[in-house]
Amino acid sequence: MAEAASEELLLAAAFVSDAQYNRNIPFKTSPQAVRLYYLYNHWIMQTVTYFFIFLNLSLAVFEEPAVYPLPFLATSLVEVLCLLVFFGRLTHFAKITPRNVFWKDTKNICIMVAILLSLTDLAIYGALRIYNIKSIRWSRIARPIFLINFAESRQIRRAFRSIRNTLPEITYVFLLFMFSLLMFSLMALKLFGERNLQTAEGLPYFRNYLEIVFDLYVLVTTANSPDVMMPAFDFSSWYALFFIAFVIVNTYIFMSLFLAVVYNNYKKHLKNEIRQLAYMKHRKMIEAFNLLKEEEGAQPVVREARWKQLVKLVAPDISNSHRELLLRISDDEQKGFIDKKSFVQLADLLNIQVITLKIRSHPLGQWMPRVYKSSVSQFLRSMVRHRGFVWTYDAIILINAIFIALDEETPYISYAEWVFLALYIIEILLKVYTYEPRVFFGKNQFWNWFDTLIIFAALTATILNTTLKSTTQYNSQQILDIVFILRVLRLIRIVDSIQRFRVIMNTLINIIPTMLTFGGLTLVVYCIFAIIGMELFHGKIQFFPANSNAPYALECGNPALKDSLFARGKYCKNNFNNFASSFIVLMELTVVNQCGFANVTAQPAKLYFIAFHIVMVIIIVNIFVSFILEAFFVEYSLEKSEVETAIERKIQELGMGVQEDVLQDEQLLDNMESAEHDLEGEVGTKTQPRGLVFKIASKRYRTVDALLQRMFEAEIPPEDEGPSLEEILNLPPAAAGPTHLTSERAV
Amino acid sequence: MAEAASEELLLAAAFVSDAQYNRNIPFKTSPQAVRLYYLYNHWIMQTVTYFFIFLNLSLAVFEEPAVYPLPFLATSLVEVLCLLVFFGRLTHFAKITPRNVFWKDTKNICIMVAILLSLTDLAIYGALRIYNIKSIRWSRIARPIFLINFAESRQIRRAFRSIRNTLPEITYVFLLFMFSLLMFSLMALKLFGERNLQTAEGLPYFRNYLEIVFDLYVLVTTANSPDVMMPAFDFSSWYALFFIAFVIVNTYIFMSLFLAVVYNNYKKHLKNEIRQLAYMKHRKMIEAFNLLKEEEGAQPVVREARWKQLVKLVAPDISNSHRELLLRISDDEQKGFIDKKSFVQLADLLNIQVITLKIRSHPLGQWMPRVYKSSVSQFLRSMVRHRGFVWTYDAIILINAIFIALDEETPYISYAEWVFLALYIIEILLKVYTYEPRVFFGKNQFWNWFDTLIIFAALTATILNTTLKSTTQYNSQQILDIVFILRVLRLIRIVDSIQRFRVIMNTLINIIPTMLTFGGLTLVVYCIFAIIGMELFHGKIQFFPANSNAPYALECGNPALKDSLFARGKYCKNNFNNFASSFIVLMELTVVNQCGFANVTAQPAKLYFIAFHIVMVIIIVNIFVSFILEAFFVEYSLEKSEVETAIERKIQELGMGVQEDVLQDEQLLDNMESAEHDLEGEVGTKTQPRGLVFKIASKRYRTVDALLQRMFEAEIPPEDEGPSLEEILNLPPAAAGPTHLTSERAV
Repeated sequence: MAEAASEELLLAAAFVSDAQYNRNIPFKTSPQAVRLYYLYNHWIMQTVTYFFIFLNLSLAVFEEPAVYPLPFLATSLVEVLCLLVFFGRLTHFAKITPRNVFWKDTKNICIMVAILLSLTDLAIYGALRIYNIKSIRWSRIARPIFLINFAESRQIRRAFRSIRNTLPEITYVFLLFMFSLLMFSLMALKLFGERNLQTAEGLPYFRNYLEIVFDLYVLVTTANSPDVMMPAFDFSSWYALFFIAFVIVNTYIFMSLFLAVVYNNYKKHLKNEIRQLAYMKHRKMIEAFNLLKEEEGAQPVVREARWKQLVKLVAPDISNSHRELLLRISDDEQKGFIDKKSFVQLADLLNIQVITLKIRSHPLGQWMPRVYKSSVSQFLRSMVRHRGFVWTYDAIILINAIFIALDEETPYISYAEWVFLALYIIEILLKVYTYEPRVFFGKNQFWNWFDTLIIFAALTATILNTTLKSTTQYNSQQILDIVFILRVLRLIRIVDSIQRFRVIMNTLINIIPTMLTFGGLTLVVYCIFAIIGMELFHGKIQFFPANSNAPYALECGNPALKDSLFARGKYCKNNFNNFASSFIVLMELTVVNQCGFANVTAQPAKLYFIAFHIVMVIIIVNIFVSFILEAFFVEYSLEKSEVETAIERKIQELGMGVQEDVLQDEQLLDNMESAEHDLEGEVGTKTQPRGLVFKIASKRYRTVDALLQRMFEAEIPPEDEGPSLEEILNLPPAAAGPTHLTSERAV
Repeated sequence: MAEAASEELLLAAAFVSDAQYNRNIPFKTSPQAVRLYYLYNHWIMQTVTYFFIFLNLSLAVFEEPAVYPLPFLATSLVEVLCLLVFFGRLTHFAKITPRNVFWKDTKNICIMVAILLSLTDLAIYGALRIYNIKSIRWSRIARPIFLINFAESRQIRRAFRSIRNTLPEITYVFLLFMFSLLMFSLMALKLFGERNLQTAEGLPYFRNYLEIVFDLYVLVTTANSPDVMMPAFDFSSWYALFFIAFVIVNTYIFMSLFLAVVYNNYKKHLKNEIRQLAYMKHRKMIEAFNLLKEEEGAQPVVREARWKQLVKLVAPDISNSHRELLLRISDDEQKGFIDKKSFVQLADLLNIQVITLKIRSHPLGQWMPRVYKSSVSQFLRSMVRHRGFVWTYDAIILINAIFIALDEETPYISYAEWVFLALYIIEILLKVYTYEPRVFFGKNQFWNWFDTLIIFAALTATILNTTLKSTTQYNSQQILDIVFILRVLRLIRIVDSIQRFRVIMNTLINIIPTMLTFGGLTLVVYCIFAIIGMELFHGKIQFFPANSNAPYALECGNPALKDSLFARGKYCKNNFNNFASSFIVLMELTVVNQCGFANVTAQPAKLYFIAFHIVMVIIIVNIFVSFILEAFFVEYSLEKSEVETAIERKIQELGMGVQEDVLQDEQLLDNMESAEHDLEGEVGTKTQPRGLVFKIASKRYRTVDALLQRMFEAEIPPEDEGPSLEEILNLPPAAAGPTHLTSERAV
């Protein structure tokens, strides 16, 4: 019986942690499978998978055309290793998934096909290489598939799905935009085509229809404004009206329209997905409940003992007191069991970061109480806590900024740098002396960590540089650069002292995790375009150092570029000759659709540039902007979410909450935190009789999922919830969810 | 008594039309004042005022430095005339406004000060001119004040107020952005300052801190990407990371942040204003009611006869049947009087465009019934109504597009143009033959009007050109240009045939009126910056025609520009030498912050460019984008507003509505309209026994105010309405509104 119970518990715990992290891997119900499931989700396994995914992607740096060339054998062996790891991971996943579910999932099929294709391509390429036949490594485009399709990259997949759903509407607007572009091009052809005008480079101006379309497309991206207008404008000032109309219609109205469509759809589809995730969570929690339930009167309940075992299994890290708090919230009336409704909340409860504040005295106070409690020490500590201490250091930072801007060569100024470093170190030491070190370096003390890391990195780098200089009489440029950057980064701290800026900074820090999703998205698009670009344009443009005597050095090694603005602007290093350069060119194209390059080569280059612009700027950048807009609107309008306020009320009721006014004195510990009343610190022994208080952690440190949920939870109208809470609560143990929830595998 | 009644009526009518148009001019309660009030609001008076405002603004074209020079005496006489007109208009306004209200209004004070300043400046400048002393006409900057401050420019004023309200929040984000910019500049100085790098023009690269700040500011606008990066990138590829970080933080995140802040505030403040306007409307309608009310039982009411007199006064244009409809809606139970609640609705009712559809037979059918009803004629008409007719003409338009793209010189192709013109004219004639002409050219038949105007303009221009060619053997270039543009514009019609595009086009047409507000806003900003720019940079850059032999012709007449990219790119015509050129340069700066110009002159030029970028791009373009975003979101989500659906219900109840299915056959008349079920056409005599049906006009043709109200009416929560409807209904006759409505004068 005990054995059976632990198996049920394991299974229930798997359900709960699935719900908690919004994972949804459907697993088999054997204890072995559950153990495999836990292994699959272990953080080491995930990290290893990601390591090999990025290793596989970065192979492009070492393969022909390479930044750092490696022999073909080495790169191909590494690739085979990566593919083996992916295959192993997939096999592991297959073990914990029912067969029919596994084979219905397009993700898994995608990975398998990609592995097969890569191996085939590798074999063909290797074989041809032996006979010295040059071929193309076409399967390299498939590499980002691994980043997208492994179960861990949920966010990137969600973003891609959001893009796919937006495509139909975008397409209509895009067709209308293309129609407008073609109309304007036709007008331009009729107006300017027979004037024999010339561009600044002496080329014929607006003669060929397709070239006009391309030029005007680039004008939409504002990259060639006003160059493209100047010949017509020089001919007659009235023609400026044509370009003004063009810019208003296409650049301002249509580009805003794209943003509107993307934003609208992004929001709609994301909301939909979040709603589905909420249903899934409910369902899993009910399945877990059904596994553990016992009858108490007519009501099915989960007894306290089992509940505690479950929480220990699901969240082994949290403290006993925290678990006790959760129990008290779930078992409101202390009946000794938890009913269905409260049990279902558990996943949300576990997701809320509750900070356990322990009233600890300073370790120095314990080790040498006499010294620490002496009047000098107390004066010192009250000084550090004083508002003036912060102001003093703000002033020091400002003076430091001036010194940084001044010339480095004067000896006094380079000595000053040591003074400033010393001052900052003293500040950190004083703070650690005053506040409890474990509190000062708490998990959520972003700015304390930031300060300390920056200062000690700067200290190390400066010492290293001085040593190098005194021994080899030579500055290491890399180390110096890092020292410079660290010195300037230190100045950011001053922003944090001003309340109004802090709110904006908070939001920015808040959205960093989600921005990583867009980083992933961008990485995928860049990788694909970079590999295509290298195949198409490799070697077309060469970069020569300034004093090179090579032929055509001034024309970037390409006679066709003679006297072009591209060569005159010294853009030669913008080429597709290796993976790193391609990335940087694509970055430049994202910012401004630099057209100089396209003029070098023929029509396919133009198509490539337009395709990149459509994918990157019109779709992905707009989604990124939509996300930032939405995040700020949420930040401006939304309060803490419902569950959290419920917990807070409970904490207050139980008399274990932090009294905000008690903390007054400690507010200087971390200005950032105290502004949000999220301060964690020593509470002092005066008013708090217990050794334990709780506080909900700052809303700044959330997972991407939590932020997204928060963005839309408030907006989902109650009648739109599909199955009602009661309906979900009464689902039979193994029942399927609401019929429209077919996206389970897709998530 | 009759005299008193009519006076009361006049006054009430003034209140009602005030409420209807959201005007709020507080007038005195004498019949003479009311007549003056009507005169003040007469459309001729308003048109004249606008004419003189634009005349005054356009004086800059004729004054030194002039596009078309006129003697100083002429321009100064016109200016004095304008100022006199403005003064007259102001005096007129003073006559219909209580004195204390008039003098409290900053608008009026502004106008008076501007008039005085202009006269003083004119006198000083004239006097100095006599003694040949050159001075500055500084009062020209004040001219846009007239455009902003006359009561008619409510929209522009609202937009300015919205900007003013957004400023504090924008400022905080801007300071943070500047901080980030300064930090990155400091890093750039430390990293690149001592490398002795050179730009493509051979100038020192990143040596001077202020220049770095400016260069990086321009990089945020993406104008000098990737030029500004190339020297560092050529030196070491790793430095690209610095620029990537810069672009992500400043261009993407901060610029999105600006949009988020502007959008958020724009929406908030506009909502607030619309709410206040709604209160005002209520109050005025209640004042009108109080003037006209009589007792009926315990209830104060307005009798039918008086109500009809009032409506006749307020809206003399609407038909008897339309008035009857409104009466039936207001006097629901046909009691012979209208109660307060229904009366208050009147202003909204009058604003809804109800189309009176009269069942008229075709005039030709009346004049020569036998011919018109013959089987040939009936076949012709059914053919025109057939879907295939539209398809045929879509095909013709496509073929026409191909012919336009082909070369003009071939004689066959220039003949083809006549064929197409003939085909289009036949189409219009056939349509007029089939549909009732007054219906075909109805007020809301946008596309019919568009077609007809384009075709007849093209016909006229083509005939004119042919005549000129046959008499003088010479094409007039201006006429040819217009012909070309008209020909291409004809092609737009094809978009209208596709349902999905029609929705987008509708929204675009819908927001055109409001875009004019932004046109006004832009005009004000451009005028001010153009005048300042002309004073600062006049003559710094000269434009010479291509074959000029003047010294420094290749350097734009400025030796400092020798070998600069500015001169090499042939940008010489981008200068501040006259009003028109300045406008075009400012337009280019709006699109891309072209920095070439700033390098020519010293630091003040850079400040000027940055100031313009902040005002125009960061604030106004963002507000414009916000508006377009909001308009599309509303279009995507909002149904017809509440009052309209109430009227529609009434129309249906009264059995006077258009049965949509009856119209099936006529739907081809105007595809655009029928898609929205807004078709107006001959209804046929088969099912409709009455000679009169009503239809709510298409939502496409609305005033700016209506669109704005529609945007936010749905969002104002009921509890936020300030005084409740009942409270407003019970206001005493001359009572002040709710105390927080102090913005009356400001609107």
